[in-house]
Amino acid sequence: MSAALPPALRHLVQAFTRLPGVGEKTALRFAMHLLTDQRSVLDTLGQALSDAASRLATCEACGNIAERDAPDTDAAATPVRCSICADSRRDPSQLCVVAKVQDLMAVERSGAMRGRYFVLGRLLSPLDGIGPEELPLAQLDHQITSSGVQELVIATPPSVEGEATALHLAREFGRRVRVTRIASGIPHGGDLEFADPITLGRAMAGRRGLDG
Amino acid sequence: MSAALPPALRHLVQAFTRLPGVGEKTALRFAMHLLTDQRSVLDTLGQALSDAASRLATCEACGNIAERDAPDTDAAATPVRCSICADSRRDPSQLCVVAKVQDLMAVERSGAMRGRYFVLGRLLSPLDGIGPEELPLAQLDHQITSSGVQELVIATPPSVEGEATALHLAREFGRRVRVTRIASGIPHGGDLEFADPITLGRAMAGRRGLDG
Repeated sequence: MSAALPPALRHLVQAFTRLPGVGEKTALRFAMHLLTDQRSVLDTLGQALSDAASRLATCEACGNIAERDAPDTDAAATPVRCSICADSRRDPSQLCVVAKVQDLMAVERSGAMRGRYFVLGRLLSPLDGIGPEELPLAQLDHQITSSGVQELVIATPPSVEGEATALHLAREFGRRVRVTRIASGIPHGGDLEFADPITLGRAMAGRRGLDG
Repeated sequence: MSAALPPALRHLVQAFTRLPGVGEKTALRFAMHLLTDQRSVLDTLGQALSDAASRLATCEACGNIAERDAPDTDAAATPVRCSICADSRRDPSQLCVVAKVQDLMAVERSGAMRGRYFVLGRLLSPLDGIGPEELPLAQLDHQITSSGVQELVIATPPSVEGEATALHLAREFGRRVRVTRIASGIPHGGDLEFADPITLGRAMAGRRGLDG
């Protein structure tokens, strides 16, 4: 499709197709929009990408996205820390384990976590060949020890992989710290009539006493 | 939603939302994909955007996307020409008028046009306040005169705006050159049963004699 395009346009379209869910047609639409309607955004987006490449890194403590103070900071000199790990008001005794950075952001938006986080980056998935040795257990172990964590709040998703990972972490760290699991059940505003049997079963199993 | 993001990440997300059809959630997914899974694409896409900004321009003859030979060419020295306008094997007597560059690319893929193109950039749309004075009629006039065009093939879409534009161009240039309109009807492989009445009416009105 893009054989007849000018090389610089073809390269731009190809680069856009590397974004998740972007096929060649959408990539061409992005490129044409920038080149015909929004020429200034071409520079804005290019600058934002270049800034992101130089300023953003992975927090060496938790795996969250962290911003360096100065883009030319020697990475070896000061360890990169995200704003949450650097915040001394955070409760060091709680560590919330999530699968990915977007999940950390979601928990953070809820305001329900006052401790810090640990991003696994992946979940156990034997079918995809992801076993326990693929999980960053040594880094998690180090975080638990160095921060004096007392409770590990497992906030992996309530899926087969998420539950398997939660169980594995409980077995691995359950003797040293308290390991808890976020509740699974009917979501706020959800309808019992349309809930799937597994969710309903979990809601039942997770029922709590009501103080009347 | 993005208030708690590191500034460089927030800027990147905002820049992505300037792409057509990309909301804040998709923009964040793009950014996180680049920052966590595909760090190398961050540079690739940034470089492609920078190359596009410096190398790609609008063809001064037809409005197509054109690539400069050298990125530092003084734009004032040599007029920018796209590969189609620069191709001397093209039939100068035919000029195909399209609404946008993507339509030019579609006609070009069909291989059905041996002449050159002219990109209007917009269509007549009184409701949106786009009248004839918003169309690049002077440039089109100049192209017709300077290239010795004999046939103007109007390939605007068969919509209200496309038809209005086609009629206006026919009135404007019909006395000097032959003005033709691409056919509208049932698409190849299309089903008469599901065709809308306007399309079917056009297919009927555009019927041609069959030489048996």
